[in-house]
Amino acid sequence: MRVAVDAMGGDKAPHEVVKGAVRASQQFPDDEILLVGDEKAIHRELTSCGTTPRNVTIHHAPQVVGMDDPATSSIRQKINSSITRSVELVAKREAAAVVSAGHTGATVAAATLHLRTLKGVRRPGIAAPFPTRSGACLVIDVGANIACKPVHLFQYGVMATIFSKHIFGIKNPRVGLLNIGEEDAKGNDLAKETFGLLSDSDLNFVGNVEGREIFDGKADIVVCEGFVGNVLLKFGEGLSMGILSTIKAEAMKGFWTKVGLFLCKPAFGPLRAKMDFTEYGGVPLLGVNGVCIICHGRSDSKAIQNAIRVALQLSKNKVNEHIISELDKASAPAANVT
Amino acid sequence: MRVAVDAMGGDKAPHEVVKGAVRASQQFPDDEILLVGDEKAIHRELTSCGTTPRNVTIHHAPQVVGMDDPATSSIRQKINSSITRSVELVAKREAAAVVSAGHTGATVAAATLHLRTLKGVRRPGIAAPFPTRSGACLVIDVGANIACKPVHLFQYGVMATIFSKHIFGIKNPRVGLLNIGEEDAKGNDLAKETFGLLSDSDLNFVGNVEGREIFDGKADIVVCEGFVGNVLLKFGEGLSMGILSTIKAEAMKGFWTKVGLFLCKPAFGPLRAKMDFTEYGGVPLLGVNGVCIICHGRSDSKAIQNAIRVALQLSKNKVNEHIISELDKASAPAANVT
Repeated sequence: MRVAVDAMGGDKAPHEVVKGAVRASQQFPDDEILLVGDEKAIHRELTSCGTTPRNVTIHHAPQVVGMDDPATSSIRQKINSSITRSVELVAKREAAAVVSAGHTGATVAAATLHLRTLKGVRRPGIAAPFPTRSGACLVIDVGANIACKPVHLFQYGVMATIFSKHIFGIKNPRVGLLNIGEEDAKGNDLAKETFGLLSDSDLNFVGNVEGREIFDGKADIVVCEGFVGNVLLKFGEGLSMGILSTIKAEAMKGFWTKVGLFLCKPAFGPLRAKMDFTEYGGVPLLGVNGVCIICHGRSDSKAIQNAIRVALQLSKNKVNEHIISELDKASAPAANVT
Repeated sequence: MRVAVDAMGGDKAPHEVVKGAVRASQQFPDDEILLVGDEKAIHRELTSCGTTPRNVTIHHAPQVVGMDDPATSSIRQKINSSITRSVELVAKREAAAVVSAGHTGATVAAATLHLRTLKGVRRPGIAAPFPTRSGACLVIDVGANIACKPVHLFQYGVMATIFSKHIFGIKNPRVGLLNIGEEDAKGNDLAKETFGLLSDSDLNFVGNVEGREIFDGKADIVVCEGFVGNVLLKFGEGLSMGILSTIKAEAMKGFWTKVGLFLCKPAFGPLRAKMDFTEYGGVPLLGVNGVCIICHGRSDSKAIQNAIRVALQLSKNKVNEHIISELDKASAPAANVT
């Protein structure tokens, strides 16, 4: 199976991206990795890695979408960018999946434009794991779709359920609806209508989930519209990093607290691991016709290696085929609301 | 000045509420406190306090709105509830302010119904302080209005600016717009139109604020629609408590980490203080014709005492009068968008 990797995307590209791709190629010797981007730059990085595995090839793309470029127009204008070329390889079925740590908006735009949606899918959504007390909660959507309709949220529940089953191995994932209260009739029109769709579905719907219940692990999956999900993802990242850095800064002010922090260090480990995005590697854009994994802009080689693993898992487990057939089965309730 | 206190509202009512009110009455001997609720229950609590200050009086209200009651209908049905009666005292100008730790939705509904909005205000909004690295960021709205228009968000910016100036003593508060990116043209239609209104205003508008920038303190005030604000408030509460309890639980597993935690304890102090809602006491529902302070359901006597202090500050500083005159000045841009 072939994975196209945007070698120029991310704060640490191409160095860490190429390094991660090389490691993944060694971890998955039966699969192929296409490094897409500036040929010379990728060559240089491969040389510095000391090896070019036989299952790694370069696919030249001279342009780069910068982090400050506008998402949609850059995709239309920079047709030779590493992001666009990577996605095109999937569109032409020359690769099964694309992995990019570049401009998220541009990746979503390129994937939506060139791959289009899976049969039956109304809007793609990004599913990101949030740390919880006991593991992770998959929140979908975290920024692909900021004009959500109830049917979009319902479909996010279906797609994330299939993803959780096949990738996280959760048998019957609990699906919750992000809302401002626990009672059934709470929330805005979007929440109320989505509540009805989810209640009538075959999903393991556990009702409304309030903000504070995400960390408590009330649900394995929480659906919400992309604006809220994006704000929440970034707020959580900022807050958790802020809390840990504040504790550290305070502890460093005194001798005994400094000693205490040193002794206490192992207690922070499990939390740091939960919050470590490099473990998951990347998050899927679910609903496009092809596998698309979006990585954090600060991804290092470990994150890229894990993202390639997730991309291969999605492809090999035929997650997209399962989504099509599940949505086909569920089309009756979904068709009722537009 | 008189403050009506809903003696039956909150998880720890009436005991902690009455205790907090008695303390506030001693702190502010020139002001009056009306304890609204079941006469016998309040009497019992006053007896257990060992004193009934001369500036505390009881106003009998036989009904209580429970935490599980539906907000709007309970206000219409339970016309003798402590919440409704407290708000009515303000409506009849028998009190300047109301303080309640009861059902938030019911308090907002009662205040909106009986007090109505200030001249020029389109929708009331709840302004809640979020902890930041260096202090606090006032987020408005956190749940009063889940069908926001751009002009509502613009007015929240105006109202929160006046509140910050008069209550927090910030000379020229920086106002940000919660959004999914830093660039001017980011976000959904609500965000884009609000951006225009805020840019054209006299407010100290610092542009879009992403989720992760709240804790960093990019702005003193962040405006957002009530659904997002409510989810964010509860998510932040759950996440920060979850992080601290996870660290503690992990540290308690080993001998040396337990010692470390003990030594490290002072380093957690400033963070805990920042996250301690009892310090602020309560959050204002800005925009209603009267002062309305909403307290956390878990409020103890310290929180109630501080909430009464905030209520008096708002009344004495004539925050509502300033809001009316500022909105009158700003009515030109606000009138452009509906």
